[in-house]
Amino acid sequence: MRKVAVIGVGHSKFGVRKDVNLSELTYEAVKPALEDATVSMPDIDFVAFATVGGMYEESLPAVVAAEYSGFTGAGLVRCEAACASGSAAFYTSYLNVASGMSDLSMAVGMEKMTEVDTPTMMEMIGRAGSYLWEFHNFGMTFPAYYALYASAHMAKYGTTEEDLAEVAIKAHKYGAMNPHARFQKETDMDQVLSSFLVAWPLKLYDCSPICDGSAAVILASEEKAKELGIDTPIWVKGVGHSSDTANLSKRSDFLGLQASVTASRKAYKMAGVGPGDLDVANVHDCFTIAELLAYEDLGFAERGKAAEMVREGETEVGGRLPVNVDGGLKAKGHPIGATGCSMIYELTKQLRDEADSRKRQVPLKNNLALAHNVGGTGHYCYVTILER
Amino acid sequence: MRKVAVIGVGHSKFGVRKDVNLSELTYEAVKPALEDATVSMPDIDFVAFATVGGMYEESLPAVVAAEYSGFTGAGLVRCEAACASGSAAFYTSYLNVASGMSDLSMAVGMEKMTEVDTPTMMEMIGRAGSYLWEFHNFGMTFPAYYALYASAHMAKYGTTEEDLAEVAIKAHKYGAMNPHARFQKETDMDQVLSSFLVAWPLKLYDCSPICDGSAAVILASEEKAKELGIDTPIWVKGVGHSSDTANLSKRSDFLGLQASVTASRKAYKMAGVGPGDLDVANVHDCFTIAELLAYEDLGFAERGKAAEMVREGETEVGGRLPVNVDGGLKAKGHPIGATGCSMIYELTKQLRDEADSRKRQVPLKNNLALAHNVGGTGHYCYVTILER
Repeated sequence: MRKVAVIGVGHSKFGVRKDVNLSELTYEAVKPALEDATVSMPDIDFVAFATVGGMYEESLPAVVAAEYSGFTGAGLVRCEAACASGSAAFYTSYLNVASGMSDLSMAVGMEKMTEVDTPTMMEMIGRAGSYLWEFHNFGMTFPAYYALYASAHMAKYGTTEEDLAEVAIKAHKYGAMNPHARFQKETDMDQVLSSFLVAWPLKLYDCSPICDGSAAVILASEEKAKELGIDTPIWVKGVGHSSDTANLSKRSDFLGLQASVTASRKAYKMAGVGPGDLDVANVHDCFTIAELLAYEDLGFAERGKAAEMVREGETEVGGRLPVNVDGGLKAKGHPIGATGCSMIYELTKQLRDEADSRKRQVPLKNNLALAHNVGGTGHYCYVTILER
Repeated sequence: MRKVAVIGVGHSKFGVRKDVNLSELTYEAVKPALEDATVSMPDIDFVAFATVGGMYEESLPAVVAAEYSGFTGAGLVRCEAACASGSAAFYTSYLNVASGMSDLSMAVGMEKMTEVDTPTMMEMIGRAGSYLWEFHNFGMTFPAYYALYASAHMAKYGTTEEDLAEVAIKAHKYGAMNPHARFQKETDMDQVLSSFLVAWPLKLYDCSPICDGSAAVILASEEKAKELGIDTPIWVKGVGHSSDTANLSKRSDFLGLQASVTASRKAYKMAGVGPGDLDVANVHDCFTIAELLAYEDLGFAERGKAAEMVREGETEVGGRLPVNVDGGLKAKGHPIGATGCSMIYELTKQLRDEADSRKRQVPLKNNLALAHNVGGTGHYCYVTILER
């Protein structure tokens, strides 16, 4: 397998982006990624475009966004794996280069969730699992699915609402330092705990926001990266993927996401590293509980010990393993298709020692980072390990 | 790059399939593919699921269909490239094995177009291009797009309505021999020419039907194919992909599809073969004119000479290069996401000398076959060259 490097990344402002259409929003990430990689559009041989889409007027938007960005002629596919779509596109783009089919490939993720009204969007998100059985018959929404996991974790391990709130407080702290983040304000325990209840124990501040945004990643072969004189290629060291039952009723418990366990073990094995080797990670915190589950599923903490990690500041900058120090999905925002590529953007910047604020730049020791992107309620999972 | 073989294929009955839900329809292709490859579900490491979807109640159906087929745990992505989605999934699945990430990977395509009413489906298909500009503003539908190409070809090269009809007659002739085909009846010149006008010069019998169906392909590394004792592995010899402008108004002419030209040249180059070496081909005949364009774009005929090929029977079984002798999209049916995988099914059977009827088995000389799958009006194209 060929070595593959991330050589360019780009990121739009996340937020309510009524000021741009979906093509313009996509280009906001594509343009800086091309500049970062010092390549131009016709150099890119294959583009994997991530969007859950479906709900837009332009319902099959890949070709429209690609034309606007100047990719006409390149191989093109739209990748969808619910909230892990961005990582599925990254993986597809990675395979193009790793296999030898492409020397330069791009993954770009975009979502413009505010284009449809909120109830429609909530229903759309709820369809990520087994819609006809669980959503349609039982009225399960996406927060309700994760509330099952939160209440099970609380019952089994004594995790508290305050522990969940700590995750939100950390997210907002770092979101406030990230110019791309949707929420750039800190929050506190009172505000989180008193925010309105969505699905017990999850309150408004436990939930990632509906959001618009895009992120792009350019991947190159070792030879191409050399030829372009890339200063600091960031190598794709390991990738892993897995899926789980559509029906949550078929799972043995709600204490963790099996897909995260399987995908991360594959990625660790391929990279030849373990969780203790990582300098920084971005995990899928669509809800605060999801970040705690991730710590345990990915082997950052023992089962039942995730809350302790947050309480003791171990996942802050300067802690044992900084996690989501860009604000995470919770504060940075979660424009579904963009999220996976946004994680790679952040980790590439961290590994290059180029975080936008020194206050949130992690110290580099082993030059290793991990991205963990979940689709649905653990229906899909992709894990990527990067190395400087 | 590792050698990759098709080791198992499966195909559902195409037609109006109100008797099954989308998961059951998917499994109708998955089950025979697994049996053909002599593997079981847990052996499959990665599944690329093709469906344009979006219009179904179960709008993100990959995980639901995967659970039903027993793929829970495998890496999973849904691929969408409009009508080329099946080939995008095949390509993704191919990359998994070629790169060394997987030893066994599956591509499965499914569409259940009759689940929504026909006007909704027609609008959905019309969205494959630049919806907001051309469909929404000017009322262009999918037949209207291809009618532009047909009328331009007629004006430039003297192609006639009778020439288009010959393509339909050939399609129905072979569809009548194919137990999986939606239409299993022959047709004749009078019937085609007198069928109602959809968008001049395209009549009802010039159009592929709205249809339900599925097809599945299992890909393996050389070592895995050997280990399984596969008698006749069918090797993926070349692949090519391209895209074109979303807006048809930005194209220089309507005489051919540039994406088909580019994708096929890439595939020929990778395979080290030319159009003259092929024993059989399946091309994207969503409309009769599309088959003629394909002959010219793929280099089967000189520009303006495609109609001659059909008139002289060169693309019949026994002719110079048999094309779409399974009935093609026109008579076999075109369940969008399934089509790309259905082409690989047919060509694998042909190369194995296992066509379901001896009357439509092509003679094998070079043991080479080509699949050509277009998304939208040449918005996407994937070309695959297989070798026994």
